[in-house]
Amino acid sequence: MIETIRWVNNSIRIIDQAELPNKEVYLNVSSVDELIDSIIKLKVRGAPALGIAGAYGMVLGLRELITSNEFISVEKVNKIAESLIGSRPTAVNLKWGVSRIKRIIELKQDAKTNELMDSAMSEAHAVLAEDIQCCLSLGRQGSVLINDNFSILTHCNTGGLATGGFGTALGVIVTAHQQHKRIHVYVDETRPLLQGTRLTSWELMKAGIDHTIIADNMAGYLMAQKKVDCVIVGADRVAKNGDAANKIGTYSLAVLCEKHNVPFYVAAPTSTIDSIAKNGNDIPIEERNQEEITHLLWNRIAPVGAKAYNPAFDVTPATMITAIITEKTIYKGPHYNFAD
Amino acid sequence: MIETIRWVNNSIRIIDQAELPNKEVYLNVSSVDELIDSIIKLKVRGAPALGIAGAYGMVLGLRELITSNEFISVEKVNKIAESLIGSRPTAVNLKWGVSRIKRIIELKQDAKTNELMDSAMSEAHAVLAEDIQCCLSLGRQGSVLINDNFSILTHCNTGGLATGGFGTALGVIVTAHQQHKRIHVYVDETRPLLQGTRLTSWELMKAGIDHTIIADNMAGYLMAQKKVDCVIVGADRVAKNGDAANKIGTYSLAVLCEKHNVPFYVAAPTSTIDSIAKNGNDIPIEERNQEEITHLLWNRIAPVGAKAYNPAFDVTPATMITAIITEKTIYKGPHYNFAD
Repeated sequence: MIETIRWVNNSIRIIDQAELPNKEVYLNVSSVDELIDSIIKLKVRGAPALGIAGAYGMVLGLRELITSNEFISVEKVNKIAESLIGSRPTAVNLKWGVSRIKRIIELKQDAKTNELMDSAMSEAHAVLAEDIQCCLSLGRQGSVLINDNFSILTHCNTGGLATGGFGTALGVIVTAHQQHKRIHVYVDETRPLLQGTRLTSWELMKAGIDHTIIADNMAGYLMAQKKVDCVIVGADRVAKNGDAANKIGTYSLAVLCEKHNVPFYVAAPTSTIDSIAKNGNDIPIEERNQEEITHLLWNRIAPVGAKAYNPAFDVTPATMITAIITEKTIYKGPHYNFAD
Repeated sequence: MIETIRWVNNSIRIIDQAELPNKEVYLNVSSVDELIDSIIKLKVRGAPALGIAGAYGMVLGLRELITSNEFISVEKVNKIAESLIGSRPTAVNLKWGVSRIKRIIELKQDAKTNELMDSAMSEAHAVLAEDIQCCLSLGRQGSVLINDNFSILTHCNTGGLATGGFGTALGVIVTAHQQHKRIHVYVDETRPLLQGTRLTSWELMKAGIDHTIIADNMAGYLMAQKKVDCVIVGADRVAKNGDAANKIGTYSLAVLCEKHNVPFYVAAPTSTIDSIAKNGNDIPIEERNQEEITHLLWNRIAPVGAKAYNPAFDVTPATMITAIITEKTIYKGPHYNFAD
């Protein structure tokens, strides 16, 4: 298992995903500001991994308050929490991970600082440990949907790199492979940041799973040729009605699946389900820097002055999702009620 | 008007499209081998421009036979024609442009070499002149489909750079702009070779037309937000039944249009209609080098050993095309009979 994010030597150790696959570099992140910078630059990314980063980030924040002898007020803790959550607005897991530690700090506000620190630390370790278990369970749940000889299309990266453990959508694929099902994976390169080409292919190479990278715009042609048996993607936030926000391009894949009668699965831990957002309209969509589109490897490719639009996510309506795979169960569409 | 391809100083002068938009470099191509190399490397590209390149390429081939004092046999002429046509198998215009000159050579086989050369040259000039007229006419025909305040999505490059003249799909857009219609253009970046970002945006900047570049996978999200009034694309080959081969990703756009009730237009000169291919199954699809996917600007981005699939085109069924705009008329779908 890839150790995407761990607590090592009193800091958060992450594998720098911006450098993969060419370099395997680990970074030690020891302040909230550094962590926020790493999150914005996608050195650590993926909804579940961001949940863990948020939890450990709150521990770093608490330590900063303690070391500077500041009084640990609700306002100061909230400020740290908001700055972490604001670094990626769409992924609800980040907020969820932050809130887990914030709750502990609030509960133990009157405890001694070392006791408070220990409790926060334990909770952050628990967030990581639960994620590892959650991935294993989600992978097993989802693997029943994968038949022998399936050709599976996936988008972005939802493997070990996106989690503390084993992956979500890619975890389902790896589990099916471990069950000796013969599978082939089509990997959407996932513009603009190419998480498919750089990260998913890297993970599939390590797992020894046969795969082919395609440009995102080739998925329709593959489906028209009946080369895709199912699509599995992750999610950054699932609304109460099942509408799912995920990496930009996911919605187009769902439309293609509907046209070609290909099952469209979303794999996400229950921590991705937002108990507040009623539907997709309530999910904020992060818009990123235009230069991710106008430049390649820091070289301008668009004419000087050209504008670009760069939403990082889109929302797929629940009615277009065949099933949502969680660590607990498989929810079948088109209507979802997670309270069941 | 951009002079994409012209006969200057006894050679074919092309603007090097592989260098755009950063550099405006003109190349003088004076042998068939150089031309084939330029076509394969997409220094000259776009179905109608390839038709003109094919015509002038045959003139270069004829000159090579004459200068080396070779007997101008049907076999030798065919060999040159086949080598040119084989450089890009999908674009039927290339074959059409080559055949125009081949026919002249066959007709005048017994003439003196200078007379033969003059006739071939005149015919190649006629191919270019007709294309310039054709673009103007096609632009006027298609512009009736563009309303004031339209937001138009286009894919790949179909402007002056893709033709000898003024463009096909982009020519329609430029004509609407010249008619003082207020329009906004969404430009698909068009992976893997980014003709949208590099070429279409460059042409729209020159024409002063407001536009925004998007990654191809964002089109569905734009349509879901009702931000697209119509899609116009070009074609590299249209079968007798109206099935249209165009740059990879076109079919996915047509599926998205169907889902969102957005008109989907194909703009192509009648020289793009293949009188032999009954339907899309008869159109060969060029598969290009995997490195166009695994590398960016000659830097590897995929892990070593990773495979990619790189079809350069896909086929959109006639029944999904709202109308096909030619220089002669607008053919309305879903059933096409170009013999009418």
